[in-house]
Amino acid sequence: MSTRTVIGSYLSPYVRKLLAVMNLKGLDYRIDPIAGFFGSDAFSELSPLRRIPVLIDDQLTLCDSTVICEYLDERYPQPALLPSSAADRARARWLEEYADTRMGEVFIWQLFYQRAIGPRIFGQTTDEAALQRALEVEIPQVLDYLERQLPAEGFLFGASLMLADIAIAVHFRNAAFLRWQVDAALWPRCAAYVDRVLAQDCLARLRPYEEHMLRVPVTEQRAALAAFGAPLSEETWGGQTPRRGLMKI
Amino acid sequence: MSTRTVIGSYLSPYVRKLLAVMNLKGLDYRIDPIAGFFGSDAFSELSPLRRIPVLIDDQLTLCDSTVICEYLDERYPQPALLPSSAADRARARWLEEYADTRMGEVFIWQLFYQRAIGPRIFGQTTDEAALQRALEVEIPQVLDYLERQLPAEGFLFGASLMLADIAIAVHFRNAAFLRWQVDAALWPRCAAYVDRVLAQDCLARLRPYEEHMLRVPVTEQRAALAAFGAPLSEETWGGQTPRRGLMKI
Repeated sequence: MSTRTVIGSYLSPYVRKLLAVMNLKGLDYRIDPIAGFFGSDAFSELSPLRRIPVLIDDQLTLCDSTVICEYLDERYPQPALLPSSAADRARARWLEEYADTRMGEVFIWQLFYQRAIGPRIFGQTTDEAALQRALEVEIPQVLDYLERQLPAEGFLFGASLMLADIAIAVHFRNAAFLRWQVDAALWPRCAAYVDRVLAQDCLARLRPYEEHMLRVPVTEQRAALAAFGAPLSEETWGGQTPRRGLMKI
Repeated sequence: MSTRTVIGSYLSPYVRKLLAVMNLKGLDYRIDPIAGFFGSDAFSELSPLRRIPVLIDDQLTLCDSTVICEYLDERYPQPALLPSSAADRARARWLEEYADTRMGEVFIWQLFYQRAIGPRIFGQTTDEAALQRALEVEIPQVLDYLERQLPAEGFLFGASLMLADIAIAVHFRNAAFLRWQVDAALWPRCAAYVDRVLAQDCLARLRPYEEHMLRVPVTEQRAALAAFGAPLSEETWGGQTPRRGLMKI
């Protein structure tokens, strides 16, 4: 059995980023597929901000997808997650930060929250004005920015898929869960790039589990994934009721 | 004249982190000391989330204090900003992330915002309930966490000051501007550690400029700093009116 455990939902973009990185590097893992916001008290001890993912391995227990991915890249350098020159590495880290924070804000904490998390997890009514603002103003601003940054072919730093590519693309999977997709007439580079990145094996391999989780209620997800053959951990840090994290991102 | 320009206020903890790192590494710079929230349209082009600091050097224009510090550490490795083992580096990056986000949230976006930024920059009334919650619940939670992480002597990773130490300590300077300090009876390790880190030359050297800026209105800060001998840039990205950023942190 793997010595690595990942705590976190297949539906979280930050968990997806980590799992794709582990797939890319050929690192095996077991997953405790707790739903976002459903961590237990023991989970709060591991993740002080109640964020997912958490990685537990033979050396440490670690929070924050960016920090975890940099750790794995230092311990298992091939294939590299960052380009080689200091300037390119800086640009890669900035684009990952932009994806984690700004794309997280609009795609997850506006679009996905208003349409899925709020109503389904917290029983809230969708804030239609906030949703419209996300769809008509904020997401287009993000796509305009990305359209200027993304390459017409290949990936951000050439022919090899790297961390910044994964960090950007994972948010579009959550949008796809809601049947939203990039308008290729308005943002052609972005639309083609997202399709290209999400088709990579390290991400495509996660799709069956994601789609499986979308179909069953939170309380039945672990059992459903077990029946489906997901690499589940024995221990769980899942709780019975949802709680908000201290930090959104 | 230096080929490096830093855009950002001496009163921002994230700018202070970067300037302390540059002092520690002996890297010279010119500063455009724009007040937080007062960037021009040209500033928005450089910093899409309207965050400070921004670094401009001979190779790139870069946002995000963490990304900038990692870039400088890769180009100018001595003295090192991160410890050597992968596990220690991961813990260092996590503590920096905790400082940037959670400490930023409570010390800057609750305490400092309610007492200083809101009233002075945006003409808002202090939300006394939010302020009390920060002082009585949120800040004590952060201090409880830090008290378990911080060393009784020296710095987080031994005898050398590193990035995580700086990232944590800078927030306590903003608290000190409001005459708030750690209660050494309740959090003795934290109180001693903060004093120890802030007394380091790379941070102590910034104090005269910080104190100078606290005494003059936003519109007079550049002229006052020039008269005081601060290493000012020729160009400025400052605007005339405050605008909120897209992201808090």
